[in-house]
Amino acid sequence: MKAEIIAVGTELLLGDITNTNARYLSEQLAGLGTEVYFESVVGDNKDRLLGAFKDSFARADIVITTGGLGPTDDDITKETGAEFFGRELVLDEDALENIKSYFKNRGMSQTNIKQAYVPKGSVVLKNERGTAPGIIIEEQNKILVMLPGPPSEMEYMFENSVKPYLRGREKHIICSRTLRLTGIGESDAAEVIRELMANSTNPTIAPYAKEDGVYFRITARGGSAEECHNLIAPAAEEIYSRLGEYIYGENETTLARAVVNLLIERNISLAVAESLTGGMLSSAIVDIEGVSKIFREGFVTYTNESKADTLGVSRDVLKNYGAVSRETAGEMAKGAAMRAGAELGVATTGIAGGGAVKNPTPNNEDLSYDKPVGRVYLGLYYKGKIITKELNIKGDRQKIRKTAVVRMLDFIRKNVDDELS
Amino acid sequence: MKAEIIAVGTELLLGDITNTNARYLSEQLAGLGTEVYFESVVGDNKDRLLGAFKDSFARADIVITTGGLGPTDDDITKETGAEFFGRELVLDEDALENIKSYFKNRGMSQTNIKQAYVPKGSVVLKNERGTAPGIIIEEQNKILVMLPGPPSEMEYMFENSVKPYLRGREKHIICSRTLRLTGIGESDAAEVIRELMANSTNPTIAPYAKEDGVYFRITARGGSAEECHNLIAPAAEEIYSRLGEYIYGENETTLARAVVNLLIERNISLAVAESLTGGMLSSAIVDIEGVSKIFREGFVTYTNESKADTLGVSRDVLKNYGAVSRETAGEMAKGAAMRAGAELGVATTGIAGGGAVKNPTPNNEDLSYDKPVGRVYLGLYYKGKIITKELNIKGDRQKIRKTAVVRMLDFIRKNVDDELS
Repeated sequence: MKAEIIAVGTELLLGDITNTNARYLSEQLAGLGTEVYFESVVGDNKDRLLGAFKDSFARADIVITTGGLGPTDDDITKETGAEFFGRELVLDEDALENIKSYFKNRGMSQTNIKQAYVPKGSVVLKNERGTAPGIIIEEQNKILVMLPGPPSEMEYMFENSVKPYLRGREKHIICSRTLRLTGIGESDAAEVIRELMANSTNPTIAPYAKEDGVYFRITARGGSAEECHNLIAPAAEEIYSRLGEYIYGENETTLARAVVNLLIERNISLAVAESLTGGMLSSAIVDIEGVSKIFREGFVTYTNESKADTLGVSRDVLKNYGAVSRETAGEMAKGAAMRAGAELGVATTGIAGGGAVKNPTPNNEDLSYDKPVGRVYLGLYYKGKIITKELNIKGDRQKIRKTAVVRMLDFIRKNVDDELS
Repeated sequence: MKAEIIAVGTELLLGDITNTNARYLSEQLAGLGTEVYFESVVGDNKDRLLGAFKDSFARADIVITTGGLGPTDDDITKETGAEFFGRELVLDEDALENIKSYFKNRGMSQTNIKQAYVPKGSVVLKNERGTAPGIIIEEQNKILVMLPGPPSEMEYMFENSVKPYLRGREKHIICSRTLRLTGIGESDAAEVIRELMANSTNPTIAPYAKEDGVYFRITARGGSAEECHNLIAPAAEEIYSRLGEYIYGENETTLARAVVNLLIERNISLAVAESLTGGMLSSAIVDIEGVSKIFREGFVTYTNESKADTLGVSRDVLKNYGAVSRETAGEMAKGAAMRAGAELGVATTGIAGGGAVKNPTPNNEDLSYDKPVGRVYLGLYYKGKIITKELNIKGDRQKIRKTAVVRMLDFIRKNVDDELS
């Protein structure tokens, strides 16, 4: 089957937001084996949206829209979809209930009731994360799926309602397996399996550079899930044999999850001290379910005073080496472990640029001022030993901090997993 | 004039990458006063791209493509553009020179020479950051602009070559001003200015629901920047008069930046204690340039032990009210301020669901286990007084934590800004 995606919203045409929904849906549809040859964006304008429906349904069997289901007058997707199929809007009691319960403890505005009206005879998809229901109209082998614009609502609805609705309509299924690597660049990793990628057709192997490393996605097409997975397995095995040390997980396993799982498995408790990353490292770790088994405490020690008072970094070290130094990173890591009673302590310090991560209590003797933007030190304290690492990260402030978090997680993995160190 | 954007690339249709080029070009064209009513994505397929050219030029005067100018066989945008306008491809010596000099110290492949061929009679735009030249074909009031796909090449070329080419063709310019609100929902905010939005044509007023609140974007069209801004001012003033208490900033000012600016302006030092948000609040604050003037220290006190030992939350409070309670939030805030020597202390505690934020040292007497997922307490200690707030946040784990950060920032704003409290 062929599908098209129409994103509705003047804010997209004005460049206020990026159309990330199209990427998500494209990837999902590819996974279902559904072909997508065309995607478009139209504004909140009934005539132009009607024109887009006409064009898209001339080319495709399925049209999926995102956006324009909100409560305000310029949200017109549902009304236009109903008009295109010649259906009137009727009140859906379940949708109304969902809206009412969403606003249970807050004021519900009259405009929200508009969201409970749906085209007659349509399939109504409950919105578990907001008020606008999704809608499917199926008529004479044409399927219109209208989804809300906010990505969290749209993705949840697609995964839980639309995917089951569409699945099984294709003769072949497509399945994929993603190997996630970190600590190696995209072109270096691709070089190692170059001929493997070039010679594979089913499965195919494609590399992606992501924020937390490089992914290799192995995709196969087959008559059944089993056939698919059997096609993928040898390719995956070959990649593991060549690049296994860099592979931290598969599919949805983030680097943070891989690290937390490792610590839980080995029952190693953790304390985190952050200067450069300012809470971002703790937040990435605490975000993982089950983390309470091993996470003891985090410290955002931004000033020299807090590094000394809270973590016990010696004032001599701060004076002689500076707040941004191997020595400070090591003492921060040890101090965090000691203070929180954790087996493993880790710490970040560095220069992210933009004025906010420099030592806020500068004096002429602080050597941190000699360090270039992007200089980062990781500290790790484990089994009585301090290990440190110097990094030089390219990019802006945000990129430097995010990369430091990724490199720290990889540093933990490498130093805690005996098979790697 | 009307413009359309066509992004060319099968990788977009497969969801391998996000179409960030469309957002950039949309924003740029809006700034030039050029109207964009339609955008599309097609794969690397000549027939479908010819069809897209036909459709787009039926609606618009200018079509801008991105991608498909590379050296490989599946890059077909230039060839298709030439065919659409009935032009042959000829070697462009300057483009060839540029490609040669780009590869000066590296190996140049024969396939790269393909990139030096351009449609006869076209304007060739030098690529300062890569090898594929950009191309403009102008014929009978129709303009086709073909730009390379990599964002850094495309943006540089648009800014330095396409903008000067297009500028001055519009009689009017468009400018806009965005008012950012928090602490009020989209439909409630829209309700307050409903007739204002409905009756405005120049400027127009449009609401957007964002993660950190609601934005109203006021957009005007005028002969000069001054005229534009004069058209916008009365509408902005009217929105301020009706919703001023919710407006924390304009345009690029994030909520975190507004709060940090407020604290810097009043010279109020800050300490942060987090349980639920696990470092996310500190990270959002530390991300702002200049924050070192006021940020003292952050604590991620995840266990009851750390709440008691590091922040001095009394064990009686933890026992009698639970880790997730008004009382604990208040004591955490006060303890953070005391411990870090800060004037203002803030704290979050709550249940995000998924097992990670529940009290990790449960016992039958801990009342936190009665609390529903989404229950959050904010604590704030300022001028010797503890203030707390109970929230019930809908959504998944990540949404609850992010919303808690936004609500905490707003809570700071309301309690520190005398004009608001």
